[in-house]
Amino acid sequence: MSMIDLSPPAAGQRGPVEHGVRDQIVDAARAHFSRFGYGKTTVADLAKAIGFSKAYIYKFFDSKQAIGQAICAQCLDKVLAGGEAGVVEGKSAADKFRRYFNGLISTSAELFFEDKMLYDIAAHAAEEHWPPAVAYMTSAEDRLKAIILLGRETGEFERKTPIDETCEAILLVMQSFMNPLMLKHNLDGLPEAPTKAINLVLRSLAP
Amino acid sequence: MSMIDLSPPAAGQRGPVEHGVRDQIVDAARAHFSRFGYGKTTVADLAKAIGFSKAYIYKFFDSKQAIGQAICAQCLDKVLAGGEAGVVEGKSAADKFRRYFNGLISTSAELFFEDKMLYDIAAHAAEEHWPPAVAYMTSAEDRLKAIILLGRETGEFERKTPIDETCEAILLVMQSFMNPLMLKHNLDGLPEAPTKAINLVLRSLAP
Repeated sequence: MSMIDLSPPAAGQRGPVEHGVRDQIVDAARAHFSRFGYGKTTVADLAKAIGFSKAYIYKFFDSKQAIGQAICAQCLDKVLAGGEAGVVEGKSAADKFRRYFNGLISTSAELFFEDKMLYDIAAHAAEEHWPPAVAYMTSAEDRLKAIILLGRETGEFERKTPIDETCEAILLVMQSFMNPLMLKHNLDGLPEAPTKAINLVLRSLAP
Repeated sequence: MSMIDLSPPAAGQRGPVEHGVRDQIVDAARAHFSRFGYGKTTVADLAKAIGFSKAYIYKFFDSKQAIGQAICAQCLDKVLAGGEAGVVEGKSAADKFRRYFNGLISTSAELFFEDKMLYDIAAHAAEEHWPPAVAYMTSAEDRLKAIILLGRETGEFERKTPIDETCEAILLVMQSFMNPLMLKHNLDGLPEAPTKAINLVLRSLAP
């Protein structure tokens, strides 16, 4: 780590971008949050558990939430990667659409509901509009838009509805399966329920 | 109240169907729940507040939840009435569809989010699948089916998708606005967001 990293630190992250220490803090925080819960932990608890001083942790993250955001961002990157894998596999725009949402939803369900700590953090992120949650939705919207435009080009999808209206409405009706706060109430219906919703959306896209 | 009422008591409600006393208990319970919360109240608290013995209350309701269910059923009847009023106003099947969901959603938002007590009870009902919540969804599905069938008859809606699949998928995508546990996270988007979702669903119904 002797080279100088010129990239700016992410929101809420302070000081030199020393990835080694930062990752060490995030890993230790994950372990601690998993055992004691995100809500109940303070930066002082974390410092004690890791064996760092509070001041040293504050050199890297300006609050507990900034650490939570780093964990959340890692997790949402995995969710987006689950969606991307589906897009690559899809043969047509409709197929990409279907596999994209299936990828996002199944990865979300795996991550958020097999690890209560990740769910708690994702729930805070969704409820309080944390930057990684907002960035995730922007990313999902961009990818969705690209798939819809492809389908309009290939003639698979209708072209009358303004593209932004189409994308926004799709994200609104798919939120029951994308937003962890809502997905929580839909776990019993996986994977059939999102498939039925996806089929309805694909019917709405028909030319 | 000297005439004998032959209708069977509703689930969880016991003893002779003496509406006067039953209503008196429900009204007193509403007031008490509003002040102290549904979750924290016991039947003993209620009995004390109303001035009845616990045993007397148990002659009419076999648990606190049975009283909660009576309140919930009253409330969901109002929501359904809000939807029905829309159906009556609607000129075409699409218009009835739009007004039906707008009626359900706006009445839900009014009832559940202007009175924390009603939200708490509705949330318990949705989470624990109380009979009035299940009956509400059955009722909504029946009404929806009738509107879709009308639209198929008038040629406004497509006829290829099996009707049950169509109805189920619509309720799945509209649940973000119908289920109080999910609507809670969508209040900021009212009334535009459900309108966008309804427009998407209507596109999916196009012949």
